[in-house]
Amino acid sequence: MTWAERAAGLDAADPLAHLRSRFLDAPDVVAYLDGNSLGRPLAAAADGLARFVHEEWAGRLIRGWDEGWMSWPEDVGDQLAAVALGAAAGQVVVADSTTVLLYKLARAALDARPGRREIVVDAGDFPTDRYVVEGIAAERGCELRWLRTDPDAGVTPEQVAAAVGPATALVLLSHVSYRSGWIVDAGAVTAVAHEAGALMLWDLSHSVGSVELALDAEGVDLAVGCTYKYLNGGPGAPAFGYVRRDLQEQLRQPIQGWMGRLDPFAMGPGYVPAPGARRVVSGTPPILAMLPLRAQLDLLAEAGIAEVRAKSVRLTELAVAVADDLLAPLGVRVGSPRDATRRGGHITLCHPAARDLVERLWARDVLPDFREPDGIRIGPAPLSSSFTELVRGLDVLREVLAQR
Amino acid sequence: MTWAERAAGLDAADPLAHLRSRFLDAPDVVAYLDGNSLGRPLAAAADGLARFVHEEWAGRLIRGWDEGWMSWPEDVGDQLAAVALGAAAGQVVVADSTTVLLYKLARAALDARPGRREIVVDAGDFPTDRYVVEGIAAERGCELRWLRTDPDAGVTPEQVAAAVGPATALVLLSHVSYRSGWIVDAGAVTAVAHEAGALMLWDLSHSVGSVELALDAEGVDLAVGCTYKYLNGGPGAPAFGYVRRDLQEQLRQPIQGWMGRLDPFAMGPGYVPAPGARRVVSGTPPILAMLPLRAQLDLLAEAGIAEVRAKSVRLTELAVAVADDLLAPLGVRVGSPRDATRRGGHITLCHPAARDLVERLWARDVLPDFREPDGIRIGPAPLSSSFTELVRGLDVLREVLAQR
Repeated sequence: MTWAERAAGLDAADPLAHLRSRFLDAPDVVAYLDGNSLGRPLAAAADGLARFVHEEWAGRLIRGWDEGWMSWPEDVGDQLAAVALGAAAGQVVVADSTTVLLYKLARAALDARPGRREIVVDAGDFPTDRYVVEGIAAERGCELRWLRTDPDAGVTPEQVAAAVGPATALVLLSHVSYRSGWIVDAGAVTAVAHEAGALMLWDLSHSVGSVELALDAEGVDLAVGCTYKYLNGGPGAPAFGYVRRDLQEQLRQPIQGWMGRLDPFAMGPGYVPAPGARRVVSGTPPILAMLPLRAQLDLLAEAGIAEVRAKSVRLTELAVAVADDLLAPLGVRVGSPRDATRRGGHITLCHPAARDLVERLWARDVLPDFREPDGIRIGPAPLSSSFTELVRGLDVLREVLAQR
Repeated sequence: MTWAERAAGLDAADPLAHLRSRFLDAPDVVAYLDGNSLGRPLAAAADGLARFVHEEWAGRLIRGWDEGWMSWPEDVGDQLAAVALGAAAGQVVVADSTTVLLYKLARAALDARPGRREIVVDAGDFPTDRYVVEGIAAERGCELRWLRTDPDAGVTPEQVAAAVGPATALVLLSHVSYRSGWIVDAGAVTAVAHEAGALMLWDLSHSVGSVELALDAEGVDLAVGCTYKYLNGGPGAPAFGYVRRDLQEQLRQPIQGWMGRLDPFAMGPGYVPAPGARRVVSGTPPILAMLPLRAQLDLLAEAGIAEVRAKSVRLTELAVAVADDLLAPLGVRVGSPRDATRRGGHITLCHPAARDLVERLWARDVLPDFREPDGIRIGPAPLSSSFTELVRGLDVLREVLAQR
């Protein structure tokens, strides 16, 4: 049986296959393998935007704020918490960018651990996470303790245990590595941080919407994440932040804006944080920009995150098997965990000529991502990808390799 | 001649009248008098969103970043600078919210004036401006020097001159008062701040798109502004920040993110600010959310900001005249400058029962804003409003007052 035949069989048996047609097409694209960088738009997102502009923005005008927009940060946050984060209501807001929320929550965490002056961070983490804490460390006179991890894997609880101590205020880690796809054991690492008296801040950008999360059950303190990857929020869509309920009243984030204040339209003197997670908000909520995310959350609720994760595992298992069979003989190495339970929704295929290969793939309308120095990142979004599309893309990679 | 007849005459003579039909209708609205809080959507904004989702997001997918999206913060910033700010290219970016940009630029300004520990701010300024600098002052051990201004007017150069001194690091003011509509003399106040060795940060939220600005000519250092008022960017649209070219290399903002870094896709160690205004950016640019703004900037380029300002002056002159004639006998006071050259695009009508009156107006689909404690704020957006609509709205206010 060929890989294309196996893929066809998997598609025929896929309980989520009927949802693929909900997404808008890119007619020229042979295989979209970058759902983990920018998810495809739902037709419902386009329809939702059009309806909103005509009926709500044009139709309700300023009245829209009183009629519901004002609480969208919490409302959409609650929906996200329920369908994707394993979190009860009242702990998540949608706001800002991931970078700005990282800054706010990391600063708030440091203020909540006065006297502690160390931040533990992964030297292999996504750049913005590293840059944000470097800036905070410089401004606050903190020391960064860098974890050095296996680039084909990621952070282990043992590494974190060796790095934390009585001076640790904060541990900041990505739950799924942007490069290898390695899933950190969030429950175990959070427990290690807590044992040292530190707060734990997770970046969920590369896991949310493809991996099951259990923030409440794992005792997570703080989390942020991106909505334009598996959550299909659109290019530059707003981010989300989670603050565990019993921490909310202790935490103050540094960007004091009117929309995070108690009773903002009193416009009174002096900032008083709003109750609950709302205090994470600073400026006016990005209403229009939340619409595609809302459409995706409705779809996730319909599909169920467990089914999405199960399909994601089948997709990356297939990718690893094809790589082993067709690409390894051409010099490709799987730079991701082989144990699916330790792997998120994407895998990285390593080859010394990865940059050139990705250029050739793009020229043939097969779209993975290049990641320095030698990674071809394959991220099939479970709700919008077929197994056939994945195999088609990997087969073009095989051709491109063979032609070199 | 009745006021309705005069309004009809002004509409007939209005050189911008033909542009009103570019905006989407709210069929039930009798008069929209809140264009200074939330501008109406252009039909082109709705069309642009639909086209973008289908052709660019769905059609180009991740390739869109390489094909142009990456520089939208500067590209849209340059367009805004040219049509509305009186600023040369290379000094403006679109990003974040007004509140977040205020925080970044105020923090950057303080770091650029080491040893100076005072911030001059208006006690009557828009709440978020006050809250942001209160937070910064607390975290940095700075002192706030509060200007106390006439609530029916606003800040004068003399007041600022009396407040600044050798310890002043930063003066933060709104160019147009959100309440009275008072226009601060930006050139004179900037000169006063500079004479004291301080940096000047303007909030242009209530002026941009209705008042002519000349940031370069007036030697302004830093500015931020909102795009969902007269710039019709939609609810929660991203903000903009201006950093004068020769200051850019000296300034570092505190939220170090990958999208403000030199060569972000190297994903290298250590944050190095990007050259130019780009360093103000932190997270991923909000591409989708910039589309309605782009449509409005095209319209502003077509109309010309001088014509827009001229119509805005005619609108507020008419509002003052109607208020004097019809509303003053019913206890209404004009709480805005009577000199049109000192007045932005809105006026505030004061009455002890303002809150109740605004509720009654809304119930009759006439939509001004209530502002504490006694203000009915009338903000007719010059590009989408007619003189007839303005008079119709004020006439309903007269009826409502008469019925009390």
